Order: sequence, then C-alpha cells, then structure tokens
Amino acid sequence: MRNITIIGMGLIGTSLGLALRNADPATSPLGALQITGYDHDPRVARAARERLAIDQVAPGLAAAVDGAQLVVLATPVRAMQTLLRELAGLLAPHTIVTDTASTKADVCTWARDLLPATVDFVGGHPMAGREQAGPAAADGTLFHDAIYCLTPDPATREQALNLVEALVLTSGARPYYIDPAEHDAYVAGISHLPFLLSAALVSITSQSPAWQELSSLAASGFRDVSRLASGDPAMHRDICLTNRAALTRWVDEAIGALADMRTALEQADEAHFDALFTQTKAARDAWLQRAPHLRPGEEHYTDRPEVERRPLLGFPLPTRRKDKP
Amino acid sequence: MRNITIIGMGLIGTSLGLALRNADPATSPLGALQITGYDHDPRVARAARERLAIDQVAPGLAAAVDGAQLVVLATPVRAMQTLLRELAGLLAPHTIVTDTASTKADVCTWARDLLPATVDFVGGHPMAGREQAGPAAADGTLFHDAIYCLTPDPATREQALNLVEALVLTSGARPYYIDPAEHDAYVAGISHLPFLLSAALVSITSQSPAWQELSSLAASGFRDVSRLASGDPAMHRDICLTNRAALTRWVDEAIGALADMRTALEQADEAHFDALFTQTKAARDAWLQRAPHLRPGEEHYTDRPEVERRPLLGFPLPTRRKDKP
Repeated sequence: MRNITIIGMGLIGTSLGLALRNADPATSPLGALQITGYDHDPRVARAARERLAIDQVAPGLAAAVDGAQLVVLATPVRAMQTLLRELAGLLAPHTIVTDTASTKADVCTWARDLLPATVDFVGGHPMAGREQAGPAAADGTLFHDAIYCLTPDPATREQALNLVEALVLTSGARPYYIDPAEHDAYVAGISHLPFLLSAALVSITSQSPAWQELSSLAASGFRDVSRLASGDPAMHRDICLTNRAALTRWVDEAIGALADMRTALEQADEAHFDALFTQTKAARDAWLQRAPHLRPGEEHYTDRPEVERRPLLGFPLPTRRKDKP
Repeated sequence: MRNITIIGMGLIGTSLGLALRNADPATSPLGALQITGYDHDPRVARAARERLAIDQVAPGLAAAVDGAQLVVLATPVRAMQTLLRELAGLLAPHTIVTDTASTKADVCTWARDLLPATVDFVGGHPMAGREQAGPAAADGTLFHDAIYCLTPDPATREQALNLVEALVLTSGARPYYIDPAEHDAYVAGISHLPFLLSAALVSITSQSPAWQELSSLAASGFRDVSRLASGDPAMHRDICLTNRAALTRWVDEAIGALADMRTALEQADEAHFDALFTQTKAARDAWLQRAPHLRPGEEHYTDRPEVERRPLLGFPLPTRRKDKP
C-alpha cells in the first residue's frame, strides 16, 4: 500500500485524485494506493471526498503528510512558497514531493532552498485544464494523453523520478522532461499568452459602452477566443507574477504583431493580410494535423522504453534504469 | 414555386442551400422552392449540387439570375462590388437581392450605387460560421438559432424585407435589424478582433525559433484561442479591408490592454491582475450564462409578432404588416 497525499483539492488536485483512485491496482505502476487529501478550506476537501477523489480528508497539514511516501502540491503557484516552508519541518526523510503548478522555475528554486536535503522534489505540470475551477469541475480523465512536464534537476534521485513518473503514467498522461526555465519560456507562449489575449478581448469588449449590443451579437468565435478568460483569477495572477520575464517578451511580440496589423489596416495593405492569414492558417492547420486528438506531443513520447527514458529537449537527466519503479 | 439563386457556393452559400432544401414546403414561410446555385469555380458549384444544397447548377451569371425572385450573394466581401456591377444589367425589375457578407456598410453602399432602382437590396449577415471553408464543410443546421443581422434602409420596400426575413426564418436563424455602420462597429469587436488576436497568436508562436517545442506543448487553451486563425484567408482579408476604421479602433484598444498588462508584469502589480482577471471572468461567465446554447441574442428576438416586427437597436424601419409574407 502506497500513501499519497494531495494538498490543494481544486480542479487539478481533485482530478488527479479521481484518476489515481480509478486506476486498477493490479496493473497500475503505483499499485494499491491510500490517498489523503488536504485543503486549507475544509469545505473544498470535503467536496473532493464526496466526489470520491480521496480516501480521507486530513484535518491539518501535519496529519496530511504523516506517513506519506509521495506528496503532491496542487495549490496556486505562489501559495507553494509558504507551503514548502511549512512542509520543511513536517516531512519525514525520503519523502518525495512534486507539484502541479503552471510555472516551474520559481517553484523549483523554492523547493531547493526550503526543503531539507533528505527530501526529493520533482517539479511537474500537467498540460491539461478547464476554465472552471474547484472539485465540482474535476474530471478523472482530464490528464488522459495529456503532456505532463517534469522538471527534475541532475541531483534528483532516481527513486524519486521513478515514483513521480509512475504517478504521471497512472494519471493517464505522458511524461515530458524539460528544464524549468525552458518550460516557463515555452508555456508563456502557448498557454499564458493565449490567456492574456483572451482576457484582453473580454476586458475591452465588456467595458465598452456598447457591451449590451456587442454581447448580443457575440457568437462562437467570441466564445472560443474568450474561453480562457473564465479561468480562475488567482491561478492566473500567480502565473503572471511567477513568469514575468518570459511573458513580457511574448506580450511584446503580440503588441508588435497587432501594431503591424494596424499599419496594414491604415494602408489597406492587401498583400500583408494575404500573406499573414495564409501563413497563420497553414501553421495552425499543420499543428492540428499533428495533434488529431488535441493532445499534442504524442510523437515525442511513446511506450518504447528507449524513448521513454530519454530527455526530450536536451536536458541532462541522471542515468535511468530500464525497469519500472 | 419560388425561385431562389445563391451566388457563391462556399461554406455559407452551401449551408444556406442545405437549410432551405431541408425545410418543409408545407410549413416554411417561403413555401416550395427551386434553388439555383452558381460559383465562378464550376467544381465548387458541382460539389454543392452533390451535397444536394441546390436543385441545379447555373452555367453562368446571366442564367443563374434568370427568373429568380430572390438572389443571395455569398461571396467574399470585396468580390461583391464587381458582382453587383455585373448583376445590375442582368436582374429583372422587382428582383430582391440580399447578401451574407461579414461587413455591411461597403456592400450596402455598393448596392445602392450600382443596382437599378427597380431592384431591392437588403444586406444580411448570419452570425454563424466555421473555420473550415468550402461546400464540404457546409452544414444545414449552421444557422439554427443564430442571430442573422439584416440592414435594410428606410427606403427598402416592405415586400423585399418580408421575403428576406422569410429566408432568414426558413434557415432557422433569428432576424436582428441593425444599421450597417453600427453592425460593422460591433462585429469588429466581437468577431473580427477575436480573429486578429487568434492570428497574432499563431503568427508569433509559429514563427518562433522554438515552434517545434512550443507546438508539442500546446494544448486545449492554444487550440481554442487559435481556432479562428484556421479561417479562410481571403474572407478575412476582405473583412479587414472593408472594416478598417472600426477594426483600427478595436486593435488600438487591444494594444492598450496588452500594454497595461506589460506594465503590470514589470511592476509585479498583483492588484492589477487580481482586478483585471476577476472582472474578465465575471463578464465572460455572465455572457455565457445569458447564452446557454451559445447562440446569444435569444432575449432580443422571440416569435411574438409585436417583438418580431420591432427594430432592435433604434434603427428606423418602415412600418410592417403583422402577417407573414
């Protein structure tokens, strides 16, 4: 029996709990599990228990991690700094800790600085989500075939990496090894920038004096581009504040692209729009083609052990055994 | 038997043909129909006929409109100027003409300037679409419950308005009367700006040196915000070029919103992001709440005749009879 504790029973923590509890102990790389859940809001933890995402609710942080072999932090990013400081005095030697935050560099630094050397930390980020928050929106299949970024550092012990990789596989996701800073730069472009564009659209249209008329005419195009703006404000605030440098570069790129469009509008530059929209359609169609199930990245990860064990972006990993944990 | 001609058998023209041919002649306000299709590319017209969206393919423009009581123009916006000039010499007196273009001011001006006084023109814009183009992507239910903007002017004859409204109702959509310039200003914000934001996202990410890695990590958030960028380049080029003033104002607003975000990133302005993301989530959630079937506008149009006959945005309409055409 393996004891796993999930701290933070929001959308991601509860979805992970559901995925783990739905796994067959006979075939899962994690085997039989006992899952404990904790949330600073006891009502949220109870809601997760009512959804059967956890076996038990812990009454406090100390009780939550007592006896846990693996602790998963699933809070908003910036809450993790305080949490890691509190956990430092509570975790038994050889406890393995991972997280699910959308940015990785700060969290990995905090973990290295705050956790005792006897505890192993492996940063994680499942590339899956919904705009709704909380345990009610959770879904045990949320991670199926999703890319799950893991950001170990060269000092990470093999045992820790094996266990966290087993967690990822049990959730139905595909491990993708990447350096924390690289991760943050990339997700700034394909995840955090789309959110900011979505929020910008909703901000300017909904604060327009004509919003009543605009909102009546808005249809499926508005619905899709604005979808991310319905996401959890605290989560996205934390993402912005922990990924400022990378996000600033992408925001500058977006402002530049819009300024080019503005010039083309002023000059009625047919050729500019032709070239731009032809390029973007081709690029987007090609992306979709490579990702037919909207779970991109399958070409980077297969079940073949030699691929499974390789770092994907040139990030040096410790030598791995071929056997499963 | 009513003869209707559709010129331009792309996504919209073919979807409209399918909707009309699927309507029950016994209950449809249009009664029994004979639908002729024309496209400057004969292969496209044949594909629409193969999908049973039209009863017959016309070999040329003159044959297409010969005997037609109602002519629907469903080409990209800017093709309509030439088309209207050609049609001017071909249309019999009392022919009624409507269009489906995404911008209305230019088209209505061209129609007023180019068509003979004996021909009535009612501008139209169904607020429905897909990112795929062409007859293969057409869908007879595309317009179901969609808002369908109509932009008559005070001189439009009642008979013309009745017939075009009957076309809209038969397609399954809901007529929404609006002034052409108002229409263009509003759709610039909730339809054309979302497209430009989507294209900007795809443009800057897909031309990044890290696109291979970015595209592997891109998931459902990227998919949705980028969806419109897969749209037809010619259609969107024409939209930009015929809605320059309104679109420029919205692009400026978007650049301003992104510049504010950039400042907040630089200053790590927690309060700015908290307020912004809380506002956008509330506005977007409220919009979705009012539009549970993602066909917003139902509250503005019902089947009650007194509402059905009223202009919706203060635009003066000619007095209408209460009976259906």
